[in-house]
Amino acid sequence: MRPLILISNDDGYTAKGINFLIEALRPHADIFVMAPDGPRSGGSCAITSASPLRYRKIREEEGLSIYACTGTPADCIKVALNECLTRKPDLVLGGINHGDNSAVNAHYSGTMGVCYEGAMAGFPSIAFSLDNHSSEADFTPLRPYLVDITLKVLKEGLPAFSCLNVNFPNTSEFKGVKVCRMGKSRWVKETHKCFHPTTNQPYLWLVGYRENLEPEATDTDIWALDNGYVAVTPVTLDVTDYKLLGSFSF
Amino acid sequence: MRPLILISNDDGYTAKGINFLIEALRPHADIFVMAPDGPRSGGSCAITSASPLRYRKIREEEGLSIYACTGTPADCIKVALNECLTRKPDLVLGGINHGDNSAVNAHYSGTMGVCYEGAMAGFPSIAFSLDNHSSEADFTPLRPYLVDITLKVLKEGLPAFSCLNVNFPNTSEFKGVKVCRMGKSRWVKETHKCFHPTTNQPYLWLVGYRENLEPEATDTDIWALDNGYVAVTPVTLDVTDYKLLGSFSF
Repeated sequence: MRPLILISNDDGYTAKGINFLIEALRPHADIFVMAPDGPRSGGSCAITSASPLRYRKIREEEGLSIYACTGTPADCIKVALNECLTRKPDLVLGGINHGDNSAVNAHYSGTMGVCYEGAMAGFPSIAFSLDNHSSEADFTPLRPYLVDITLKVLKEGLPAFSCLNVNFPNTSEFKGVKVCRMGKSRWVKETHKCFHPTTNQPYLWLVGYRENLEPEATDTDIWALDNGYVAVTPVTLDVTDYKLLGSFSF
Repeated sequence: MRPLILISNDDGYTAKGINFLIEALRPHADIFVMAPDGPRSGGSCAITSASPLRYRKIREEEGLSIYACTGTPADCIKVALNECLTRKPDLVLGGINHGDNSAVNAHYSGTMGVCYEGAMAGFPSIAFSLDNHSSEADFTPLRPYLVDITLKVLKEGLPAFSCLNVNFPNTSEFKGVKVCRMGKSRWVKETHKCFHPTTNQPYLWLVGYRENLEPEATDTDIWALDNGYVAVTPVTLDVTDYKLLGSFSF
C-alpha cells in the first residue's frame, strides 16, 4: 500500500506553499489535506475550545483529498485523525509556510503547531518553511530537498516525542543541509500604534524584528539560513529543562 | 523600590484565578495586569498577526493597574512590555489558570503562552494552574505556595531561556512540592460530533481525555498531581532535541 501523508498548514488550503508541497509529494504517497479555511499565521499550537468546528470537502481524486476546516492548524490535525482518516498516516507535514519558522519563531508558528500535533498523536512529523512571506514566493528550488527529507523520514521514522523543523533560506540555490540547533533570539520593538481615522482611538499592530542573541554561533538554524543552507532542527515535545531540574530545589 | 510583577492569563481579566493571584501578591510587589478581555483557553503561544489589537484600563490604584486587551495571552505580554510599562518587570506570571496545564497540556496552554512570552522577553516567568476547571474553584489552599514560589524566584531569578510550570492538584491540602519533569502523555477521542437542530449540518467540539503514557513513572508532573503534590516543572524555551541532533544526519 502507498504511504499516507497528512498535511496541514497555517496559511490556509489555498496558499501556494501547501499546494506546492502536495504536488511535490503526490508521486510518492497518498495525500490527505485538512487545512484552515483562511490564514492562521502565528497560530502556535492553539486549539479551539470555546466554539464548534466545521470542515468541508474541497477536492477529491485518486490519491488526493483536500478538506478545509474552520479551526486552527492543530485543530485540523485533530479533526483529520479523529473524524476522517480510515487508516493511520505514515507522516504528518506542516507547510510549506510562507515565512521563516526558525529560532524563536517556532514558538509562534502554526506550521510548527501542525508538526507538534502530529508528533503528539504519535506520528513522524515535519514542519517545512521558506524564509519568504510573499504569497507568490518561488518554492521550486525546495522540491528535491522536500522530497529527500520526506522520503528519508518515511523510511526511517523519527523517535517518539521528536519532530523536525525544516527551514529554507530565501535563495534560488541552497548550499546543502545543516542539521542544527535552535538559535537563541528574541523579538524587539513589537508594537506599532495607529489611530482610527474618525474616532482617533488608538490600535496596535504586532511588528518588530528578531534579534539574534548568539551572533557568533555557527551551529544554529539562524546561522544556517543566513549562510544559504537548509536548516533541519530536531525538536522535542518534552520541554522539561533537565539542567534546571537537576539544580532547582524547593 | 518594590518589585514589579506583570501578570496575564488565558481565562480573562475577570476570572477568579487571576484576581486571587493579584490579591495574594499585592503585599509583596507592585502589580501590572494586562489580561485578555475574555476567555482564551487553549491559546498556546499564539499571536495576533492579521488584525489590530486594542487595550483599555479597567482599574488603577496604588500599586495595582489592571488592563484588558483584545488579543491572545502572548499578545498581552507584548502590549504591556512595548506600550505600557515604564520600568522592566522583575517577574512575569501567568494564571492562576482554571484547569491543569501539566504534561502535554502545556503545549496548548495560554497560561504557558504568557510564561513563554515573559521568558522570551528575558524575564523570570512562572505559570500557575489549578487542576479544577470550575469558575468558582477554591484557590485559598494555594496562597502560601504561590507566595513562597514567587518570592523565591523574585529573589533568586531563573536562568535565561528557562521558566517554571507550576500545577496544583485539586485538593484542599497539599502534601508538599515536587520538582519534576513533564510527563509523556497524549489526548485521545478528541472530537464529538453534533448536528444543528434545523439544518442538520454536523459540527464538532474538541473533547477527549488525556492518556498517561508512563503510568509507572514517579518523577513526572502527572504523578505529583495524582499524589497530592504541587508539581513544579522547569521548562526550557530551547526545544532542540539534542539527543536526536547528535544522531540525525542528512
